[in-house]
Amino acid sequence: MYEEKLIIPRPTIVDRQFTKPLLCGPGPCDIWPSVAEALSKPVLSPLCDELFDVMDDIRAGLQYVFQTKSKLVLAISGSGHSGMETVISNIVGPNETILICCRGIWDDRALEMSKRYGIKTKVHRILFNNTFSLTLIEGILKILRPKALFITHGDSSTGSVQKLEGLGKLCHKYGALLLVDTVVSLASEPFFMDEWGVDGVYSSTQKGLSGPAGISPIAFSERAQEVIKKRNFKPPFYFDIELLAAQWNCFGNTRQYHHTLSPPLLWALRSCLKEVINETLPKVWARHAETTAHFHKRIEQLSLELLIPKPEDRLVTVTTVVLPKGYDYMEFVKYMRNKHNILIFPGLGPTVGKALRIGIMGVNSTIQVADAIADAMADTLIALKKSSL
Amino acid sequence: MYEEKLIIPRPTIVDRQFTKPLLCGPGPCDIWPSVAEALSKPVLSPLCDELFDVMDDIRAGLQYVFQTKSKLVLAISGSGHSGMETVISNIVGPNETILICCRGIWDDRALEMSKRYGIKTKVHRILFNNTFSLTLIEGILKILRPKALFITHGDSSTGSVQKLEGLGKLCHKYGALLLVDTVVSLASEPFFMDEWGVDGVYSSTQKGLSGPAGISPIAFSERAQEVIKKRNFKPPFYFDIELLAAQWNCFGNTRQYHHTLSPPLLWALRSCLKEVINETLPKVWARHAETTAHFHKRIEQLSLELLIPKPEDRLVTVTTVVLPKGYDYMEFVKYMRNKHNILIFPGLGPTVGKALRIGIMGVNSTIQVADAIADAMADTLIALKKSSL
Repeated sequence: MYEEKLIIPRPTIVDRQFTKPLLCGPGPCDIWPSVAEALSKPVLSPLCDELFDVMDDIRAGLQYVFQTKSKLVLAISGSGHSGMETVISNIVGPNETILICCRGIWDDRALEMSKRYGIKTKVHRILFNNTFSLTLIEGILKILRPKALFITHGDSSTGSVQKLEGLGKLCHKYGALLLVDTVVSLASEPFFMDEWGVDGVYSSTQKGLSGPAGISPIAFSERAQEVIKKRNFKPPFYFDIELLAAQWNCFGNTRQYHHTLSPPLLWALRSCLKEVINETLPKVWARHAETTAHFHKRIEQLSLELLIPKPEDRLVTVTTVVLPKGYDYMEFVKYMRNKHNILIFPGLGPTVGKALRIGIMGVNSTIQVADAIADAMADTLIALKKSSL
Repeated sequence: MYEEKLIIPRPTIVDRQFTKPLLCGPGPCDIWPSVAEALSKPVLSPLCDELFDVMDDIRAGLQYVFQTKSKLVLAISGSGHSGMETVISNIVGPNETILICCRGIWDDRALEMSKRYGIKTKVHRILFNNTFSLTLIEGILKILRPKALFITHGDSSTGSVQKLEGLGKLCHKYGALLLVDTVVSLASEPFFMDEWGVDGVYSSTQKGLSGPAGISPIAFSERAQEVIKKRNFKPPFYFDIELLAAQWNCFGNTRQYHHTLSPPLLWALRSCLKEVINETLPKVWARHAETTAHFHKRIEQLSLELLIPKPEDRLVTVTTVVLPKGYDYMEFVKYMRNKHNILIFPGLGPTVGKALRIGIMGVNSTIQVADAIADAMADTLIALKKSSL
């Protein structure tokens, strides 16, 4: 009876054939076989004990990967950016001050997000291929006394890793909370939330954890919990960590409905965490360090330059590589995909036109993958030299 | 070298055995076999043409299920609640007025969300087992002249469906935009976005679409687009529809990165839409109507009362059933799960202790499923009568 009322006819959705590329951009990377399997586990309802068990497993696994005893640990239903919104909007309120350490595009996003909440923003910007000096930061904290400091641990737009040891202590000395983005560093670079005095941290699943995007691990310290309890503002409902904590039963005896969780993503994240737990964090960190050291050696053998000058500033998950003069970054990326079916990325934000961004992480962090990329790059260098120089 | 620094030892994540229940709560319901298959399709990167194709397929499918020619149609990376945040925060700004028609808990959530954005909220509340009269609404619109009116089409906390035909015209007459929640009605109840003058609408995937939660369909009318262009406030970054439209290429020639989409959820949503397109909307609507009519007949044969008195107010996806005096709702739900492995829900919000909430939708909307639930309920009525009365 409704046929004649349809103003939009049925569209045609065609199945297209393609061969999955090897994902070696700054993320997403490929997923563990166990995670692919986990994605097809039964959908469960938010009222099932079975789903509560999965959530409890995830919280225990996240306490391990973040290395924190804090109970306020859970996963946000959204991408890494939703973790960023959650960390900022729960800690800093309108007219309060956040100090943002800017070296890549994620910091600029944190800046943009903060402004939208009416937060007063102060920026400490450095050159994109550098990392921050704690001494300099201390000088700024002393003067500004912000409510919080935001910093990115691993920066996938530049390929650098920021030393965090000692920063929490500094922040606390001047009354600030330390908020950290670990989207591209968690389960790849060593990270110690409690020891380093990190107060709010979020990550994503499609990088070191080798899972699908869409669910974002997050944790707040006890210090942050105190601040949250006393705050006189409210974050958006979707990101309210107090309501989320009640849904995730963080403090015991609450399974209060907040929103409908995605069972496939919960199963997948649980499976990612099992992979890390089985391998152990120190071995995961060592594997990433080894693979990337090997890759960097191969890059140097190709006479290519790494964008980040100091070896200790180089991120183990994402490598930024400078091409010789005359090469076009987009063309290079396209050739790698078309000829070798390897997906790498061009620069983003401060590195546009300055570097390739090559990610080797999670299940892909092996000597074989590193060699496959380096071999393909060697071929691409020759092929594009002939055609374009 | 890091072993000794780990303060959190490896937790044990045990695999537990269970038999998946038949999901007959107000959502999530079971997923199509094709959707389970789609979830394990390859993870693709946000820079792949293959992922762009999937996104284009989704937009075309959503234009069909929403029945809209509007180009501003896409999917939010989050649960239905993130769709609610997006619709409200993009249209109504601080100190502007929203009129919320309240009959169930989702309207109360919209109210809570709106307050957090500094929006002036006005509530038009009716009895939970009723629906709204357009004449009454007109009277309020005339006086209040709000920026927007928020209403829930299908309400899963009460089991009622709101007539929307004519409401858009009324809203526009008084300068208001019409915002509609179709979380539990889309692809089950007839819905005509353009014809009904709906300006902002969101849904979810785990109800009529029979997919996994975690990605939320959304659409804005051209009228809403004009308002968005002229607004003098900004929504949270994660929910900014202008940035999302640029990522989803809504207006052509933009594939601008906003956040990392979840490939399994994109594949799954595409697959849900294919199911609806193949069956056609009129047949999907008719199937839901038939199944639920059959179920209601079975319920009446059990001498049980339906909570919603007027047949035309009863939602086809979620049925609210009143138990005879002496029965405990939680006990009833538990027995249905333990004895029959069928998951139904107790009341929520206004229906706590007043009704069972039974969902028959998507892939589950069949006479077989309706009979299975009714048979199990008949058994439960007898079993619990013996033990508790």
